[in-house]
Amino acid sequence: MSKRYVIGLDFGTDSVRAVLVDTDNGSTLASRVSWYKRWKNKKFCDPECNRFRQHPLDHIEGTENTIKGVLEDSGIDASLVKGICIDTTGSSPLPVTKSGEALALQPGFEENPNAMMVLWKDHTAIKEAEEMNKLAGEWNGPDYMQYVGGIYSSEWFWAKILHISREDEQVKNAAYSWMEHCDYMTYLLVGEDNLEQFRRSRCAAGHKALWHESWGGLPEDAFFEALDPYLVSVKKNLYKDTYTSDLPAGNLNSEWAERLGLSTDCIVAVGTFDAHAGAVGAEVKENTLVRVMGTSTCDIIVSSSDIIGKNTVKGICGQVDGSVIPGMVGLEAGQSAFGDLLAWYVDLLSWPLNRLPDTDLPITVEQVELFKDRMIADLSEAAEKTPLSENAPLALDWVNGRRTPDANQALRGAIMNLSLGTKAPLIFRALVEAICYGAKEIINRFEEEGVQIKSVVGIGGVAKKSAFIMQTLADVLDRPIQIAVSEQAPALGAAMYAAVASGIYPSVSIASEKMGNGFDRIYLPVKEHVVHYKKQFKKYQSFGAYIEKSTIEK
Amino acid sequence: MSKRYVIGLDFGTDSVRAVLVDTDNGSTLASRVSWYKRWKNKKFCDPECNRFRQHPLDHIEGTENTIKGVLEDSGIDASLVKGICIDTTGSSPLPVTKSGEALALQPGFEENPNAMMVLWKDHTAIKEAEEMNKLAGEWNGPDYMQYVGGIYSSEWFWAKILHISREDEQVKNAAYSWMEHCDYMTYLLVGEDNLEQFRRSRCAAGHKALWHESWGGLPEDAFFEALDPYLVSVKKNLYKDTYTSDLPAGNLNSEWAERLGLSTDCIVAVGTFDAHAGAVGAEVKENTLVRVMGTSTCDIIVSSSDIIGKNTVKGICGQVDGSVIPGMVGLEAGQSAFGDLLAWYVDLLSWPLNRLPDTDLPITVEQVELFKDRMIADLSEAAEKTPLSENAPLALDWVNGRRTPDANQALRGAIMNLSLGTKAPLIFRALVEAICYGAKEIINRFEEEGVQIKSVVGIGGVAKKSAFIMQTLADVLDRPIQIAVSEQAPALGAAMYAAVASGIYPSVSIASEKMGNGFDRIYLPVKEHVVHYKKQFKKYQSFGAYIEKSTIEK
Repeated sequence: MSKRYVIGLDFGTDSVRAVLVDTDNGSTLASRVSWYKRWKNKKFCDPECNRFRQHPLDHIEGTENTIKGVLEDSGIDASLVKGICIDTTGSSPLPVTKSGEALALQPGFEENPNAMMVLWKDHTAIKEAEEMNKLAGEWNGPDYMQYVGGIYSSEWFWAKILHISREDEQVKNAAYSWMEHCDYMTYLLVGEDNLEQFRRSRCAAGHKALWHESWGGLPEDAFFEALDPYLVSVKKNLYKDTYTSDLPAGNLNSEWAERLGLSTDCIVAVGTFDAHAGAVGAEVKENTLVRVMGTSTCDIIVSSSDIIGKNTVKGICGQVDGSVIPGMVGLEAGQSAFGDLLAWYVDLLSWPLNRLPDTDLPITVEQVELFKDRMIADLSEAAEKTPLSENAPLALDWVNGRRTPDANQALRGAIMNLSLGTKAPLIFRALVEAICYGAKEIINRFEEEGVQIKSVVGIGGVAKKSAFIMQTLADVLDRPIQIAVSEQAPALGAAMYAAVASGIYPSVSIASEKMGNGFDRIYLPVKEHVVHYKKQFKKYQSFGAYIEKSTIEK
Repeated sequence: MSKRYVIGLDFGTDSVRAVLVDTDNGSTLASRVSWYKRWKNKKFCDPECNRFRQHPLDHIEGTENTIKGVLEDSGIDASLVKGICIDTTGSSPLPVTKSGEALALQPGFEENPNAMMVLWKDHTAIKEAEEMNKLAGEWNGPDYMQYVGGIYSSEWFWAKILHISREDEQVKNAAYSWMEHCDYMTYLLVGEDNLEQFRRSRCAAGHKALWHESWGGLPEDAFFEALDPYLVSVKKNLYKDTYTSDLPAGNLNSEWAERLGLSTDCIVAVGTFDAHAGAVGAEVKENTLVRVMGTSTCDIIVSSSDIIGKNTVKGICGQVDGSVIPGMVGLEAGQSAFGDLLAWYVDLLSWPLNRLPDTDLPITVEQVELFKDRMIADLSEAAEKTPLSENAPLALDWVNGRRTPDANQALRGAIMNLSLGTKAPLIFRALVEAICYGAKEIINRFEEEGVQIKSVVGIGGVAKKSAFIMQTLADVLDRPIQIAVSEQAPALGAAMYAAVASGIYPSVSIASEKMGNGFDRIYLPVKEHVVHYKKQFKKYQSFGAYIEKSTIEK
């Protein structure tokens, strides 16, 4: 039997990556990245106002460049590419026309940020999210927030749509529907002017758009009517059913088959979100927590429905049947700042360094930047040498608020136990410990709610790069941390979905088993460290309780 | 009538300064500094163990060099020098022979650190101080700690003597008596082998040696017997009465008159401590708090006895009748870290800078040091530009424990309200605010105990150098801060004592009025800032209460 290949396409914040994968063993034959050109110039953004928009041409060009690139690099016969699956960031919605074209591509909207894709980290819709939470709290009907951790975020689908509709009459009137980025990109490849029949992502709809089977799909019209009648008209042009990514969204349409040099026999799977695809790429199983550890974390776990049943896990980001592995409930949690906390500290320590190029000293901006690039490694090396001590500084990791457990964006970071002898590496260590304590809080919550976690798998930049942080995590969690081999777990996970949607494997679990790249490193907890951190964790909790209480009083 | 001059001699931690002052108007004709040579090489120190000892030859040479220096620089007729007064750090005791010579100058002890002066910041006697506090707490008799804030410090006279006597049998056996540094230096100039009759300092004895009129001088023998019989024998060779610094200790002896080129008619006043002399030099009056603001602070206030009466002000360092102005009660408080907190932060931010000379970059250690020297000024300038905000970071100033109110060396510093947007100058501002809140706690305590504070006078390095810190202090305290003109307030205050002891002025208050150099700058509270800081101070107190509670629980 001849070789069969699939392509996983992973849209991140700054770039898109395609991997071309051999379905027999999951080996990656080629991998290409394309950076978003317009985004790089931040043309449609206003960071001061937390407005982050992306032009769909960045994504369309990226799709073409990377897929053509991997085909070229691998040198394979293009007809052997049997499937494609796309994962993206989320919630990152954009307005589309009746035929499913991006509004930003229509005449008159080419330069309008409100017609662009609203990136996950855009926070312009804070007021609208508050409005939704207030209404949901008072709602005489289903508790629509019960599967999204109790609080609707300004980063999500409906809040963003509501915000833009109030901000921009023109966009409001011209938008026939709104699509999550993963759906829009998938529809681009399979659409034939059949938007109403298009299979939208269960993962996106369940985690961010309040879709749930128990209330028959999206929330009832009256709920939206009470918020803004516009949302009722948006809902009308959305969907009732949603689909898991083991299913095909359709065949590659002729336009894109031709553009990419692929066959229209090629299946495109239903789209999904990056962290969820990443968990599949990292061979997620029941009782295994997959942590995507970068600037922030996304923590994914799957649970069989008979454990979770119809119950909700309190205070996490969301739980959706089939959002990771069809037939199991996917649960999502996360830390608002992980690597970001350490990057913040490096930035703090860089205040004097950044001024050097403005002095008479012969140091350039470039030299300073290069020096700063090593600082996390340097601090880690120095911190690792300091002995564990109950008298060391103790920190809270909430510099960007707390996502889970129990979302509270008003919380802030703190450090205690500072003495005249406290040097920079010791505070760095305290910050590393703080992000690990934050992770422990998430695991504790899952377990308190009946979802057992036996092992932890790490993917993402920090997991791959920092042995010091991973060892501390193992010690704090008192659990082994396995690091996935794949540098591109989300793209690999998307490829696994593609292999199932195109009929090569019967299920995501089997695809994940056959195509998984395994683990290349395991961090085992050190007994004495575990004992130490158990005590310190209690102090972290007490400190956190005080800060949380004082935040509420404020 | 011809001119009359006095000399104030101020022994600091690293150097001694002499000022030659015109008694008519307090103008300084000449000023000389002599750095301690042996101390500079830290020959008898072990900073790791907090052992800090000084060789008396450093002080003896310094006395000769500086006094001869100011006589030479001023060009005056030496016979017109009518008085000298010496202030020193304290408690800084040293062992002496029966004739009052330093043990360190005797054969066999020249290199023995235990025979040297034990500098105020030496912390080798922590165990012995604990022992004393335990005994005092259980003592069936006077509460010997009631006038020293309730807790005996390891930095003080008896604890240090006890420690060395246990550490060094040879020194224990050879020491006939022990003297505070200010007494030793004064005896050097007036002594004639008459140690038993020598007038020792009320200021030193009252603040550090548990001397109080109400129990007839030093604590009863039984108290010392219970600690260690050695102390009973030490007490026997100490003193019963003590003397204020408006009184003469004696005439300059012939040896030193000759050595310095002065007359034996020259009167030497009873010695005193530097901060107390500084308060006099800064024209301290009732209801005026004089703050010596440097790495730490010493806060001095005087109160008429009918307000204080026989009561004690809870939780401050000490109160001694006549320690500042004879006839009034001198009260001492202080912050363990003031400028030190900011220096600590600069050191923290310098971690990357300090590594630069080890890289290939063209920058030397000297260049880095020069750049660091500007950092407090740079940070102040940047911090001043940030608007006041309730969301800004909030810090506790206890990085070196808390001296007053309510001494607690176990307390540590902390910072809360840190967000990803928190830059280095904002934390600097929080630290500046924290040291000002710490000052407010001291003022509040004085006022709660009935000692009113109407104005605040600043002396010392930080007071003279940092307009930003002084303005913040005025805003936080909601009181004007006057900065004394004199750069050398302790030496000037010593000169004022000398003028009284030599009969030129009838009282310290009058000398202080006539010879005072006045104030060159006043910082007035800014109304809006005062309102803001009132709110923030409550948060500081709440944060402090949590940290204190968690320290106790630990």
